[in-house]
Amino acid sequence: MLYLVGLGLYDEKDISINGFDAIKSADVVYAEFYTARLFGGNLKSLERLAGVQINILTREEVEEENLPIKHAEDKDVAFLTAGDPLMATTHSDILMEARKKGIKTVIIHASSILSAAPGISGLQAYKFGKVTTIPRPEDNYFPHSPYQVIDDNQKMGLHTLVLLDIQAHRNYYMTANEGLQYLLRVEAEREEGLLSGDTLAVVVARAGSKEPLVRADRMGRLLNEDFGGPLHCIIIPGNLHFLEAEGLVILGGAPETILEE
Amino acid sequence: MLYLVGLGLYDEKDISINGFDAIKSADVVYAEFYTARLFGGNLKSLERLAGVQINILTREEVEEENLPIKHAEDKDVAFLTAGDPLMATTHSDILMEARKKGIKTVIIHASSILSAAPGISGLQAYKFGKVTTIPRPEDNYFPHSPYQVIDDNQKMGLHTLVLLDIQAHRNYYMTANEGLQYLLRVEAEREEGLLSGDTLAVVVARAGSKEPLVRADRMGRLLNEDFGGPLHCIIIPGNLHFLEAEGLVILGGAPETILEE
Repeated sequence: MLYLVGLGLYDEKDISINGFDAIKSADVVYAEFYTARLFGGNLKSLERLAGVQINILTREEVEEENLPIKHAEDKDVAFLTAGDPLMATTHSDILMEARKKGIKTVIIHASSILSAAPGISGLQAYKFGKVTTIPRPEDNYFPHSPYQVIDDNQKMGLHTLVLLDIQAHRNYYMTANEGLQYLLRVEAEREEGLLSGDTLAVVVARAGSKEPLVRADRMGRLLNEDFGGPLHCIIIPGNLHFLEAEGLVILGGAPETILEE
Repeated sequence: MLYLVGLGLYDEKDISINGFDAIKSADVVYAEFYTARLFGGNLKSLERLAGVQINILTREEVEEENLPIKHAEDKDVAFLTAGDPLMATTHSDILMEARKKGIKTVIIHASSILSAAPGISGLQAYKFGKVTTIPRPEDNYFPHSPYQVIDDNQKMGLHTLVLLDIQAHRNYYMTANEGLQYLLRVEAEREEGLLSGDTLAVVVARAGSKEPLVRADRMGRLLNEDFGGPLHCIIIPGNLHFLEAEGLVILGGAPETILEE
């Protein structure tokens, strides 16, 4: 039996009661934090609360040694991941492998940035287009795809949720400042006039915590603000309904001029 | 103080521990189930577990009498909603009203169909376009907008999550069968060749429960299948990565011919 359990967005108490019950009942509890991780709270307190030991697996132990599946053949295994389970390809692979082997699986969902970020910004989830992720740029690696996704969404008036690279093994969590710089650098290379320092953007930091930060302003202003600790993400709004614009003013301190645009 | 607490997808234990703690600590606990509701478990057991009374509000009490905000001025109020909070416009309005009045708010997220449905179908969340909802058709009300959203997404190779109307006050929860019929009726009216009985579709029923149903097949076949109790939703896949197609076969019983398409 394999429980795929989402830990939710921020701290060790974002897990659901169903997820908590699964951990308590499992023979073995694994977790992976290389695709995403929690920044609030600590896992020790979850271990104490549930009376279990949580074994944190490396990428190799998950993807090459297949430890979660291997032990689920004759034990009850709970495999914990940050956010909603099955968001990363590697989690879908585990689900499919388990099914192929006839191992019973139970998926226990949790909060996800996909619905949390729109909600706390006052933007309507049904007005978002495709999500995109900005990768950490390297010497020969600077894909324009996030910009293109924003462009495609904008053409249909849709908002874009822009996630930011996580490289947990290097303790690297892209800041919103880096993400905004990335997008403006793509603009400088393409010169299509999609984005500029005047473009309205929203930064969401520490979604799921008790005091998440929502800041809406022109990209030029946001570039130099300090949004505090990780995780960050960015939203590039498309066409705003008046109530959404008002939401960005009230919840994100956006300039009131956006109400007239 | 106002806690906006998500109950998650299916039963009374899909709430997070943080959400549960908020309920226990609140002076007054309200819930609304007209925008969405839980089909598993029961609220009485949550009341017993938390040692509180949960007062279920009507639309009028929420939107006209503003009960959650009115009492949050001098008490700790927890306002519970199914799914992730802030998905419905009315919840965003409450958040904004509270902020305008200087009432401290804490948002406690929970699982949402937006990330759950893609995950359990083996489809990648980042390959979804805009979400859409099919309304219950009436004599003079049969909007083509869901079809148009699918069309826009398909043009970019993206999957579409199609939510189905909920009219809780009439105890009406659109079935996937009705939703598929709706889409084919739009096709019959528009004759654009976007959809047919041969189009691959995915039905997800009771997401978040211990045994959710995922069925992937041609629309013509799905039309007459029985997917069991609510809630249902539909996914119309765009371009499938091989692993996604394999996922639909393994997780949804899709015909293996889709692996060669």
